[in-house]
Amino acid sequence: MAQQNGNLAMWQDDGASAESKVFLGQILALTGSEVSRTKHLPGQGSGFVHAHRRNEEVYIVTQGKGWLYLDGAEIPIGEGNVFRISCDGRRAIRAVNDATLVYYCIQADGGSLVQATRDDGYRLPERATWMKE
Amino acid sequence: MAQQNGNLAMWQDDGASAESKVFLGQILALTGSEVSRTKHLPGQGSGFVHAHRRNEEVYIVTQGKGWLYLDGAEIPIGEGNVFRISCDGRRAIRAVNDATLVYYCIQADGGSLVQATRDDGYRLPERATWMKE
Repeated sequence: MAQQNGNLAMWQDDGASAESKVFLGQILALTGSEVSRTKHLPGQGSGFVHAHRRNEEVYIVTQGKGWLYLDGAEIPIGEGNVFRISCDGRRAIRAVNDATLVYYCIQADGGSLVQATRDDGYRLPERATWMKE
Repeated sequence: MAQQNGNLAMWQDDGASAESKVFLGQILALTGSEVSRTKHLPGQGSGFVHAHRRNEEVYIVTQGKGWLYLDGAEIPIGEGNVFRISCDGRRAIRAVNDATLVYYCIQADGGSLVQATRDDGYRLPERATWMKE
């Protein structure tokens, strides 16, 4: 559990499929979150609306423009947008007609985060080659 | 807790600071993970090595090239690389001398994920405007 682990993997993307989705959980042996990357070609998107049982989701849009369907509303989204959707949010996403949409989605058990960043990390005395004495 | 919530926020980036870092936890009221975006200008990077008490980290490199210091080794990283680092991993990151490095880091309590994607999500009968009958 507490062992160091650095596992590098390149995203796979055939560049042609209407939807390409990669889940990282198994690739990286994740235990605290599930992370996926989704690409929708122009005009393409989720084929259904869904919600979640336990997991809170964070979305990060890294490329393009699209629409987020959320609880009956359709909201424009684009590169740089980030948003949280709680379990009950009824959601779906599509790309606009003239741009490919790429986003990451992070799932984590709602309420599971015990400590936040500044309390959880601690400095160590060792140095990387680029750190001055 | 289980309410819907769609909270959109643009990343802020002054474009000039050697390091620019944004934490999403407070902005989006996250309860299952902490998500940050870091940008290091060419040749810049973490000033110290650190580890974590509880949180597993997932890194997603979205731009540029750099070096990951991990437990004494220095590993080349670049756009498209993703990696998990467990609590004990002794880590630091820098950009190479001729490129800006941008990455996202997801923290979640190690071992807290109860269900993964395909079990946790469930379809709903309602439809977005782009979904055919």
